[in-house]
Amino acid sequence: MAQKLEFSIRKATPDDAEDLIELIKELAIFEKFPDAPEIDAKILAHDLERKACFAFIAKYNEECAGLALYYLAYSTWQGQCIHLEDLYIRPKFRRNSLGKKLIQEVAKEAYEKKYKRISLIVFDWNQNARNLYSSLNAIDLSKDEGWLVYRFDEERIKKLALNSDL
Amino acid sequence: MAQKLEFSIRKATPDDAEDLIELIKELAIFEKFPDAPEIDAKILAHDLERKACFAFIAKYNEECAGLALYYLAYSTWQGQCIHLEDLYIRPKFRRNSLGKKLIQEVAKEAYEKKYKRISLIVFDWNQNARNLYSSLNAIDLSKDEGWLVYRFDEERIKKLALNSDL
Repeated sequence: MAQKLEFSIRKATPDDAEDLIELIKELAIFEKFPDAPEIDAKILAHDLERKACFAFIAKYNEECAGLALYYLAYSTWQGQCIHLEDLYIRPKFRRNSLGKKLIQEVAKEAYEKKYKRISLIVFDWNQNARNLYSSLNAIDLSKDEGWLVYRFDEERIKKLALNSDL
Repeated sequence: MAQKLEFSIRKATPDDAEDLIELIKELAIFEKFPDAPEIDAKILAHDLERKACFAFIAKYNEECAGLALYYLAYSTWQGQCIHLEDLYIRPKFRRNSLGKKLIQEVAKEAYEKKYKRISLIVFDWNQNARNLYSSLNAIDLSKDEGWLVYRFDEERIKKLALNSDL
């Protein structure tokens, strides 16, 4: 087996926002929603600054290789916890255990801060990601407990908010 | 059709934590995880105070009838948004459109603050809740896009954080 590449991984700062947005856009293309990202580097920098979200960024020399972006969620069973919103490794840097390393950084953060849960959602067709999570012993809650994901989007929020006769 | 009961709905304060915890425990029993709630009123009061979570509380006269508890999540597509963590109506107050009213309060909050998404997860067997969300036109993302829910629990976080050989 070829020797694995060595990456530097660190907590992202607002100055990393442009690099992060580039990766977020690549991930959206991979997820088949290329036009979905509506936020830009300026908004993301502001949101990192005020801790609306957090990220670990992985670099190979000067080049961005991947990210793990998360936010602080809340469980009424266990209190404050982590939701891993995005995990992305650029194709040419895959097969170097970088996904595992990034998740481990998030887990270290959770362990240090005593957050008892890291949650995430994943597309059923994203078998590579599911294999990674399974190899790290994540629980498939949809299978084990039958959880489904629902959403109200902007249009539906507006309708709910403004229609008192619903 | 009998006349519907009238409820007062307002934003919860840290002083409501004991009432909220009572409802949270009832919800956990309904969800078949009676021993799951690990946080107490003191922790919840502190977390409401520091805005780790937010809630709307519904009362009928002096009695607690239901709650909608949420937190500020983050989407790398749309920025800060809302995750509705718990929605619960006490059995004797059901069939009064209170679930709908509580969700509308959350939607008004989202609309005012320009949050473009309200997400939630629901058990597949909780048909009453699913009917409510569907009647309010929520998108079933698991069905439409194939999203699954995964989790690392406390034991798995510890193993990931401490095992450098994984």
